[in-house]
Amino acid sequence: MFEAVELGQVLRHAKYEAALPRLRSSLLQAHLDLRGQKFQVIVIVSGADGAGKGELVHRLNEWLDPRGVETHAFWEASDEELERPMHWRFWRAMPGRGRVGIFFGSWYTEPVVGRVFGRLSRGQLDAALQRIVELEQMLTADGTLLVKLWLHLPKKEQKKRLKKLERAGRLAPDDWKHFKCYDKFAKVSQRALRHTGTAAVPWRLIEATDRRYREFTAGTLLRDAIRQHLVEAAAEKAPPSPAANRRRSRRISLLDRIDEGGRLEASAYARRLKALQTRLSRLTWEARERRVSTVMVFEGWDAAGKGSGIRRVTQAMDPRLYRVVGIAAPTDEERAQHYLWRFWRHLPRSGRLAIFDRSWYGRVLVERVEGFAPPADWGRAYQEINAFEEQLVEHGIVVIKFWLNVSAREQLRRFRERQEVVYKRYKITEEDWRNRSKRGAYQVAVEEMIERCSTEVAPWTLVAGDDKKSARVSILQTAVERLETAL
Amino acid sequence: MFEAVELGQVLRHAKYEAALPRLRSSLLQAHLDLRGQKFQVIVIVSGADGAGKGELVHRLNEWLDPRGVETHAFWEASDEELERPMHWRFWRAMPGRGRVGIFFGSWYTEPVVGRVFGRLSRGQLDAALQRIVELEQMLTADGTLLVKLWLHLPKKEQKKRLKKLERAGRLAPDDWKHFKCYDKFAKVSQRALRHTGTAAVPWRLIEATDRRYREFTAGTLLRDAIRQHLVEAAAEKAPPSPAANRRRSRRISLLDRIDEGGRLEASAYARRLKALQTRLSRLTWEARERRVSTVMVFEGWDAAGKGSGIRRVTQAMDPRLYRVVGIAAPTDEERAQHYLWRFWRHLPRSGRLAIFDRSWYGRVLVERVEGFAPPADWGRAYQEINAFEEQLVEHGIVVIKFWLNVSAREQLRRFRERQEVVYKRYKITEEDWRNRSKRGAYQVAVEEMIERCSTEVAPWTLVAGDDKKSARVSILQTAVERLETAL
Repeated sequence: MFEAVELGQVLRHAKYEAALPRLRSSLLQAHLDLRGQKFQVIVIVSGADGAGKGELVHRLNEWLDPRGVETHAFWEASDEELERPMHWRFWRAMPGRGRVGIFFGSWYTEPVVGRVFGRLSRGQLDAALQRIVELEQMLTADGTLLVKLWLHLPKKEQKKRLKKLERAGRLAPDDWKHFKCYDKFAKVSQRALRHTGTAAVPWRLIEATDRRYREFTAGTLLRDAIRQHLVEAAAEKAPPSPAANRRRSRRISLLDRIDEGGRLEASAYARRLKALQTRLSRLTWEARERRVSTVMVFEGWDAAGKGSGIRRVTQAMDPRLYRVVGIAAPTDEERAQHYLWRFWRHLPRSGRLAIFDRSWYGRVLVERVEGFAPPADWGRAYQEINAFEEQLVEHGIVVIKFWLNVSAREQLRRFRERQEVVYKRYKITEEDWRNRSKRGAYQVAVEEMIERCSTEVAPWTLVAGDDKKSARVSILQTAVERLETAL
Repeated sequence: MFEAVELGQVLRHAKYEAALPRLRSSLLQAHLDLRGQKFQVIVIVSGADGAGKGELVHRLNEWLDPRGVETHAFWEASDEELERPMHWRFWRAMPGRGRVGIFFGSWYTEPVVGRVFGRLSRGQLDAALQRIVELEQMLTADGTLLVKLWLHLPKKEQKKRLKKLERAGRLAPDDWKHFKCYDKFAKVSQRALRHTGTAAVPWRLIEATDRRYREFTAGTLLRDAIRQHLVEAAAEKAPPSPAANRRRSRRISLLDRIDEGGRLEASAYARRLKALQTRLSRLTWEARERRVSTVMVFEGWDAAGKGSGIRRVTQAMDPRLYRVVGIAAPTDEERAQHYLWRFWRHLPRSGRLAIFDRSWYGRVLVERVEGFAPPADWGRAYQEINAFEEQLVEHGIVVIKFWLNVSAREQLRRFRERQEVVYKRYKITEEDWRNRSKRGAYQVAVEEMIERCSTEVAPWTLVAGDDKKSARVSILQTAVERLETAL
């Protein structure tokens, strides 16, 4: 496929100079038009060493409005990055809506280079490419415009360029080492390009021998891509909802069948709680030792006991080992991103735990029921969430998810109780009563969530919550068992 | 000083249970009253191992509204943290305004522990304590309430507690090792407490032998501190301005004396530019090798050539080595923090460069002139900025600051030119014309900034900017010289 662009394209100086002002003003205009748009643009600059990627990055920075563009160069990962799933560092660097992010090096670099130098098997390469396709699909579905540029340089030309760079003292440390693997690099790259060039996110191959040609071509491609995306975004109608025709309810409800079990006596409760907390404490130290991280998710009805359940879990842990991440309304930096961004941000370092008090499941619960997200968006989310959790598990993170159930009747009793105890009163708001009145709609959403997101690697644990004591014991029991299995 | 709290204080169960509901509801109310306030609360939980710090952290989390509190436990620093000045990790974790941050371990931990185990000399300990005093003063001046709790445990009691924790399998790895140094630890701690307990930010010593006593006391102290701070914040009048009586202008203006030098011919310019860029390129690779980072600051009049100056610098560098940080209006996460927070956030990893297009100096330029910050705030900023830059330099970062000057006349010519070139027109806005009309006020601010913030370790370089070519050469020349000296 690379041969197809080895055409010897050249742009003469005079022609370049004559055409440049028009390109610059139209590209800049397209960039300025992005302001206030609901999508971001990611420009991936990839290709052979010495193909002028760095120069192109400089050029784009010169041509675009500096206030609306940011450049991220990905090189060796830091230990904080290595301790999270591979895509964490890219999520960290995502531009906000209305902005352009230029990625020099990207999610392609490590899979391709890793395969070339034998760190990855062919199967591992393909798995990594599959994750990339999922990521790009997810970003695209969220509206992001991905412009993937590949600068191709014939072998002969690469040698020439590297020599020239060397003379100027501007060679990067690994350049010659990479050159020796030119053929392997070309082969693996082409495999990567074939796997990941989809109709929605095509690769743009650019012959890189001539500086003026490659830069002018890249600028033109970027301008046209932004323009077209702006037109499409303006014309966008809500696509047909994938959920519209789905049956609205089930004859036998999953939640109604949760076995409420018996009540736990105070003395038995105290004994079991203590025993489980001691085990959990030891396990968290062991996990720390073995660098295994854990993500716990607590979802449940209002007043189902999420807060007190979390406290029984954290009481067993050294505060240096865990963080509780309470999920409330997003900040504006979070709103300017894909909805999963704010959760990526809080993934734990290795050997630590992150406990999410509400989570990414808000997408298919409150956002669905309250209509904050259109059906196409939350309908897609099940798959996105499963892919996200799979990445966590692949990285070795233990994912433990609790749905805390409580009957409508018990919930009412607790709401009333909260209003009576002074220091609990703040917990109950108008919103809780409003949510309660929509219990039916929420129940449909909860059941669909449990059904579609109980994967083998990250199953939901349903907790019967009418008896607080046995609910807490059962949460601790599950946490202990899951960790014991994992360690 | 620790003996003063070895009083054998105990709170009996019945008394505790009777008093707790009132404490909880009043503490919670104080916490809820924080919402929407313009200050944050940082609770530092320090003290001996086994004194119940972890339990206290859990208890405070139980008592406070989970939506308004976050706990940060500081342990081993990550490599990303080690590559920045010591306080970076704490800036990373600062709670936003209206919120409570509980710091388990804090900026005190490493100096004290480091001194106990001989990693720090006594002089280094004192220097670290001095940095802490500066940090706390700066936060306090910004309105932050700092509540510093020290849980003290007599030696005998510590031994008992550690044995008990050991039996429960809940001992942290270093606890016994630390116990062996009890006396040294006590001595160094007291030194730290004496140095850093100021009237504005006192230490609160709590006898930690009895769980109920220490938790109740801590809760009460926190509640009272928040209450008092709320009262003070409500009553606050603008303090007398430190700048009010300052002379408004100088007889001989610093900026007007900048030597404009001669114009540089195109061919000489091209030659010198290329030579300097080649040197700079080599230097950045060498800095990378030697793990020396660089922070460059570009400030200057509108249209003075900041953007094009930065481009000439970055053209010489591999995009993996630098980041340009454009400073525009803060995001809401940034607005919820001390004004320096957003700059801490962008400090480079070791061996990299961060290039700030406008910077923390906005505090004493635009915020001063436009009245966005009251005189007391920007008046204090010179000292805060000097302390900040000193920390960078102490950490081994090269700090290079450019003021790009341009005469009023040349500025006008460029404004007009920008309006004529299509792809430059966007650069010129109403605001630029407004700023220009305030040139006199800005000039006073610029000169005071240069005078007060040209420290030995981080001097300002004034660049005569009327001739763009010689300005660019002089920027590159300075950058090259500063790096050569540093490497």
